[in-house]
Amino acid sequence: MARLICGISISLDGFVAGPNPSLEMPLGEGGDLLHEWAFAAASWRESHGLEGGEANADSEVIEEGLRATGAVVMGRKMFSGGEGPWENDPRADGWWGEDPPFHVPVFVLTHQPRETKIMAGGTSFSFVTDGIEAALEQARAAAGDRDVHLAGGASVVQQYLKAGLLDELQIHVAPVLLGGGTSLFDRLGIDPLGLEATRVIASPSVTHLRFRVPARTP
Amino acid sequence: MARLICGISISLDGFVAGPNPSLEMPLGEGGDLLHEWAFAAASWRESHGLEGGEANADSEVIEEGLRATGAVVMGRKMFSGGEGPWENDPRADGWWGEDPPFHVPVFVLTHQPRETKIMAGGTSFSFVTDGIEAALEQARAAAGDRDVHLAGGASVVQQYLKAGLLDELQIHVAPVLLGGGTSLFDRLGIDPLGLEATRVIASPSVTHLRFRVPARTP
Repeated sequence: MARLICGISISLDGFVAGPNPSLEMPLGEGGDLLHEWAFAAASWRESHGLEGGEANADSEVIEEGLRATGAVVMGRKMFSGGEGPWENDPRADGWWGEDPPFHVPVFVLTHQPRETKIMAGGTSFSFVTDGIEAALEQARAAAGDRDVHLAGGASVVQQYLKAGLLDELQIHVAPVLLGGGTSLFDRLGIDPLGLEATRVIASPSVTHLRFRVPARTP
Repeated sequence: MARLICGISISLDGFVAGPNPSLEMPLGEGGDLLHEWAFAAASWRESHGLEGGEANADSEVIEEGLRATGAVVMGRKMFSGGEGPWENDPRADGWWGEDPPFHVPVFVLTHQPRETKIMAGGTSFSFVTDGIEAALEQARAAAGDRDVHLAGGASVVQQYLKAGLLDELQIHVAPVLLGGGTSLFDRLGIDPLGLEATRVIASPSVTHLRFRVPARTP
């Protein structure tokens, strides 16, 4: 069965976005600083239809993730920044234009039902209204023998973690203090949970920490 | 001039202590899990007057820190867990017994004046009531050409960081989610601050992330 792997960039103080996110600045103040390592990587640029970039260790980490991923799960807020009915959402087809960088089926958690939207380049957006387990089940079916990538945002990651559904965490720690914003883990309110550290890859731009989450009942 | 270096263990979710710290459980629920890597290290055990332990990469990181440290600064809460007048503090001479593991002068930030207390093994505890800059100045004078180690707790680290007085951060990330407790950085409320990642050392038990903090005016 496809594993559920969360891969996400955070600041050293634990934020996935800076303060005051908006349609103009979806990652909040300073939030772009979390992703500079990715913006500079050849594989990230290629997946976004851009040229250039460095073929470094960070790029290999991204490429490895893209290769391993057969489907993506994300929250509505990460998908469009909006909420409520789709007709009022200025980014109702996501942030990424006609050819999004996923190139696999994406399952968006939302309370607003909607038909699946087929994009260019192999990306499709399906909208799941019956909860995180249903979204994971659909994503697993789509992923085949590859992994399901849990993209965010923070509250969706917390929900999967608390439900005992997350198999692995890959945290990309950017060398920056944001001072505030959206905390990835916040206060989970769970009992202490030991993880198995499986890999560390470091560059001057970012440290990639990978963990296996032990099986448990929530 | 002696550099001020904060070295501290945190959980992956950013806590330096678990929920509900008490005199019986000063690190809070699960807080010991942050330090298992240290408890197992030969150099940590030696500095605490204990035998055994592993002579591994983690032990070398601790040993390097001990060698480089000429004085220590810490907060009252970390020192004794207490507050208010010393005569009411059951741990008024600290947590560590007659021969504390520091072996250099320690400067404790407090609002309660008190004479310097000389312990065995080269440790002394001086009590500084006129603020973080005064404590740092005294620690620098005591450290000579070695570093000043900022030991914690979280609020003291935040104060030095916000005041622009911290030169380096060494964060030991333990592979555990505590789910709550005392957050090291919390929400600093500062503008985004880029750090220079200078070193990563990883073992299965902990990842040591080292950063230089850029000079700036607060």
